[in-house]
Amino acid sequence: MKIAVMPGDGIGPEITAQAVKVLEALKTDGLQVEFEHALIGGAAYRATGVPLPESTVALAQASDAVLFGAVGDFSLDTLPRHLRPEQAILGIRKALNLFANFRPAMVYSELADASTLRPEVVAGLDILIVRELTGDIYFGTPRGHRIAEDGPFKGEREAFDTMRYAETEIRRIAHVAFQAARKRGGKLCSVDKANVLETTQFWRDVVTEVGKEYADVELSHMYVDNCAMQLLKNPKQFDVIVTGNLFGDILSDEASMLTGSIGMLPSASLNESNFGLYEPIHGSAPDIAGKDLANPMATVLSAAMMLRYTFGLEEYASRIEKAVQTVLASGPRTGDIWREGKERTGTSGMGDAIVAAL
Amino acid sequence: MKIAVMPGDGIGPEITAQAVKVLEALKTDGLQVEFEHALIGGAAYRATGVPLPESTVALAQASDAVLFGAVGDFSLDTLPRHLRPEQAILGIRKALNLFANFRPAMVYSELADASTLRPEVVAGLDILIVRELTGDIYFGTPRGHRIAEDGPFKGEREAFDTMRYAETEIRRIAHVAFQAARKRGGKLCSVDKANVLETTQFWRDVVTEVGKEYADVELSHMYVDNCAMQLLKNPKQFDVIVTGNLFGDILSDEASMLTGSIGMLPSASLNESNFGLYEPIHGSAPDIAGKDLANPMATVLSAAMMLRYTFGLEEYASRIEKAVQTVLASGPRTGDIWREGKERTGTSGMGDAIVAAL
Ligand SMILES: CC(C)[C@H](C(=O)O)[C@@H](O)C(=O)O
Ligand SMILES: CC(C)[C@H](C(=O)O)[C@@H](O)C(=O)O
Repeated sequence: MKIAVMPGDGIGPEITAQAVKVLEALKTDGLQVEFEHALIGGAAYRATGVPLPESTVALAQASDAVLFGAVGDFSLDTLPRHLRPEQAILGIRKALNLFANFRPAMVYSELADASTLRPEVVAGLDILIVRELTGDIYFGTPRGHRIAEDGPFKGEREAFDTMRYAETEIRRIAHVAFQAARKRGGKLCSVDKANVLETTQFWRDVVTEVGKEYADVELSHMYVDNCAMQLLKNPKQFDVIVTGNLFGDILSDEASMLTGSIGMLPSASLNESNFGLYEPIHGSAPDIAGKDLANPMATVLSAAMMLRYTFGLEEYASRIEKAVQTVLASGPRTGDIWREGKERTGTSGMGDAIVAAL
Repeated sequence: MKIAVMPGDGIGPEITAQAVKVLEALKTDGLQVEFEHALIGGAAYRATGVPLPESTVALAQASDAVLFGAVGDFSLDTLPRHLRPEQAILGIRKALNLFANFRPAMVYSELADASTLRPEVVAGLDILIVRELTGDIYFGTPRGHRIAEDGPFKGEREAFDTMRYAETEIRRIAHVAFQAARKRGGKLCSVDKANVLETTQFWRDVVTEVGKEYADVELSHMYVDNCAMQLLKNPKQFDVIVTGNLFGDILSDEASMLTGSIGMLPSASLNESNFGLYEPIHGSAPDIAGKDLANPMATVLSAAMMLRYTFGLEEYASRIEKAVQTVLASGPRTGDIWREGKERTGTSGMGDAIVAAL
């Protein structure tokens, strides 16, 4: 099995190196993987002039899965939009048709005090956000600038974007979400703004229709503004949340911050055939890059998700997850999750500790 | 001064009645106001067949300000969208050109324990969200259903909406926000998704340009997903937040839930000439309607905002606010904010207590 490794920017190289280290360690126990590296994001722009070189897309297409670090580099923020590092992540999602984004937000009992929420509100939290990732206003056309043709601002400059969803796009992500809910708590909450937006009324209608095939899953609908409140008021009311690309971007970040430790949260982005890109949900953290300070656990847990979702290797996946739990319980910790009484370590030391716990 | 009172649905009539009671009480001290009532929302639909009768808009236009309760009635959710109660609020905002929505999120020290966040994270919180209210994807055209003309879903049904902002729209809300920041902590954070959306890159550019006229205000920019996180991680970093209609809908609800007591939060929606519609940020709460259970404080505080923003009567406004504080400190409370050791009262009793404290 061939894994394309795309470290990206900032702390990306350090954290992906630890995940590779963990996967390498499992090789001695029979895991068959090989790695090939490619540039992406700011790193690719600096080397090749574009954030997503064709060779990087080609490598992904010739691989079975992608292990992704992070992209983003403030010093490139003044480039024209199509050259900025973030465009690489949008481009690769689209090129590989990674329409289903899984973002779990769970609170480890050892880290319940990391949240800014009261412990009783978040202890034991375990939500899965399923975000549609290749449609919506992220990719809809037309978009750009124009002179307003009518209305009160006729004749002046305006900018615009198009939110849109076709029926198949909604249908396939709904199936993915219902199936995920079936394997978990059996509850699915679909989030939209159907009281205002045509696109999301259509979303609600199609999700409701697909729901008829999943009588065992309890489906509910919620407006996005209310969901942003309910995640704070009572986050444990949720099991699986499914929503579009834009609302998913906002709500999944909010949900991950409920846990207080975004250095712990992995994610998966899949296409129809379970090919996937796996990445930590946190960013490239340029301020601590190259200093052996970053927490690699989210990336290591992303590698575990890869073994489970793309390769169907449940056993190896849960070995990694248990090793992470062991280190959390009794091992050293990086600064972001360090507590009085715990040994302090760096990115690489954390990788070693996880390998030792395997 | 003539105030149009629009109670709306659910608890709307009870809570607006308390605000009217408080304003009436100030008449004996020289406040000159008269009231006229009009139907809106589900109440208007039931009586006239439309949620926003022309006579209601006409009354607003003939008045100096609107005191609004709440709209929303689940039993009408199956009506075609243009007849649903919520359309009344969108319609009246647009008809009266109420482009500037002020939504404060503040934590009263007496209620700091109401939040699901740790007390030290929210104690003393005082954020103002300035939301643009008459543009964006809420009103952009074209919108609707069509058959996809190209792309991978060519030939199938899709729904779409248009996000858009003209330069003047951004410019005027930016001025409002900078001026508000100048009167408060001197910090303004503009929230967008400039890394993905053309509309919001334009938003960022125009806000930056307007900012040159406000050298005394510290302007920053933040992506909406990050803002949804930062509101949880460290909400006190914010003073004034300005954003578009859609992001404002989501973020202002998230911010209000930080306080834990949305029964306390007022709002104002203003046009260019300080004509305003004033309403509590909470909804119509049909489950407790007509039971004398609702907390009228948000509506009473909305009336105080009206005296301040539209009528420039700072003295009366702060008298109302102090009366609310007094009742919070030593008076009876409605169920939503009731605590051991406090006297319990109903909607009307709370109104009386505020009047007594004036
Ligand atoms: C970097 C950005 C384009 C991206 C997004 O908005 O999807 C990021 O926020 C994410 O959630 O992966
Ligand atoms: C009722 C709805 C249309 C409205 C909005 O989305 O603006 C509400 O959520 C609000 O924030 O006032």
